[in-house]
Amino acid sequence: MTRNVRLTLVQMRDAGSANSCCDAAVKWIERAAQEGANIVCLQELFTGPYPCQAEDHRMFDLAESIPGPTIDRLAEVAGRLQVVIVAPIFERRAPGVYHNTAVVIDADGSLAGIYRKMHIPDDPLFYEKFYFTPGDLGFEPIATRYAKVGVGICWDQWFPEAARLLALAGAEILLYPTAIGWIDDEKEEFGHGQHDAWMTSMRAHAISNGVFLGAPNRVGIEGRLEFWGSSFIASPRGEVMASGNHCDDGLVTADCALDELDLVRTHWPFLRDRRIDAYSGLLKRWID
Amino acid sequence: MTRNVRLTLVQMRDAGSANSCCDAAVKWIERAAQEGANIVCLQELFTGPYPCQAEDHRMFDLAESIPGPTIDRLAEVAGRLQVVIVAPIFERRAPGVYHNTAVVIDADGSLAGIYRKMHIPDDPLFYEKFYFTPGDLGFEPIATRYAKVGVGICWDQWFPEAARLLALAGAEILLYPTAIGWIDDEKEEFGHGQHDAWMTSMRAHAISNGVFLGAPNRVGIEGRLEFWGSSFIASPRGEVMASGNHCDDGLVTADCALDELDLVRTHWPFLRDRRIDAYSGLLKRWID
Repeated sequence: MTRNVRLTLVQMRDAGSANSCCDAAVKWIERAAQEGANIVCLQELFTGPYPCQAEDHRMFDLAESIPGPTIDRLAEVAGRLQVVIVAPIFERRAPGVYHNTAVVIDADGSLAGIYRKMHIPDDPLFYEKFYFTPGDLGFEPIATRYAKVGVGICWDQWFPEAARLLALAGAEILLYPTAIGWIDDEKEEFGHGQHDAWMTSMRAHAISNGVFLGAPNRVGIEGRLEFWGSSFIASPRGEVMASGNHCDDGLVTADCALDELDLVRTHWPFLRDRRIDAYSGLLKRWID
Repeated sequence: MTRNVRLTLVQMRDAGSANSCCDAAVKWIERAAQEGANIVCLQELFTGPYPCQAEDHRMFDLAESIPGPTIDRLAEVAGRLQVVIVAPIFERRAPGVYHNTAVVIDADGSLAGIYRKMHIPDDPLFYEKFYFTPGDLGFEPIATRYAKVGVGICWDQWFPEAARLLALAGAEILLYPTAIGWIDDEKEEFGHGQHDAWMTSMRAHAISNGVFLGAPNRVGIEGRLEFWGSSFIASPRGEVMASGNHCDDGLVTADCALDELDLVRTHWPFLRDRRIDAYSGLLKRWID
């Protein structure tokens, strides 16, 4: 039996309200399902604007619980269309405990699992440490009807440790919902290199772990940030199978032949040769 | 005080004998020194042909001890030219204990340290597990007059763990002496992708660790292998600063401004945010 999974990423701009963002996402998910998608992955914090450009307490009002109105609505869509939906939202877990979370809804509408962003950035215009409690669920793949998916969120995509852990735990497809863009006064000098480093880093995860990888990224200009879209899907050899452009809302789709994982990993047998006897330093902050 | 280091990689074809290979290497090192090189890195097993295309006991005769004739000769060159030399050789450590080793000779001709290849490949035409005992020195950077270098050898270049460990232990420049090439009947279909994956993987190490990186790779056709050269040096942002072509002997040089490491790492602060509390699975073979 071969297992072919059609993966679709949705890249969108902020539609102005949680309801409008949900409406837009549902429209794209329906279109993807019509085109045969099995798994649809939305971008980071898809229900609104990217909320972390300033440290503003009012932004916490954008958060919601799990389950909650957004997840309830998407669960109905998933069950009706028989698609897996990865829905990244601003999670209100408890008073004062908020997470940047991705909810994986299985193709029957049930909750397959959640991932809470583990690596939290904090940089000019990306003040996430103010908002998000670091995740406490580790790097655990989530089994769905069509594939075992390993979810990371945005900043996680720069850490080879996260990709490795998800792959070692059986992830077949890594998904990185993202909200990354150019800062207005940096784009000209650094923009090309930043974007290239972003793709390079994730393509390398696909290569070193022999997994499929998809990264849906926001588009549109919000404040001083121009989100660079260019959502893409990479093969286990790191080839870009499909990609979006820098500015348009839309879908990015590729067929992932999961049986290839074993073929690729026996031809590039990195997992065979890891020196686990010599890796303990990876658990240190710095090796003095 | 700014620390600028001129790094030069040497890419060569097999010159037919250990003496001829050494002659060629010395000629290239002298030329590099004339052009201002501070650190010169030779390719993997530079003193002869790539010996692992078959399991042939006669190949063990190519090995030598450390110190030994090759290292003695290069030590004189290093001291005379005041350059650091990274010299990868087939090491005979003891009867029946052979390693794929890189010797780092400091700019005064003294032995700065050695690295013994930790990840040993074994694939058609790369039967290294037959020849090389896996290294037992771990991933330890080696301090030299001009920079703290982290050496990996060929197959090591595919493992993000190795790059991370070297960077966490203070390496400023990662060096990956290499002997990788296309197999005759694979080149047309897979050649481009293999080469691209090779560069992508190492450029990603430079990015995720904020280090300079250089990879000198052999050229020439030996048996069924066409070594693909294209030695390159990457910046801590993963940009290719200099690269060689696929077929010619020659030098690849770039200036590494070591003060950039702190700048890059405070702008891409990955080392700040690692989740060392959640990485213990990296010490496992597979996570069931």
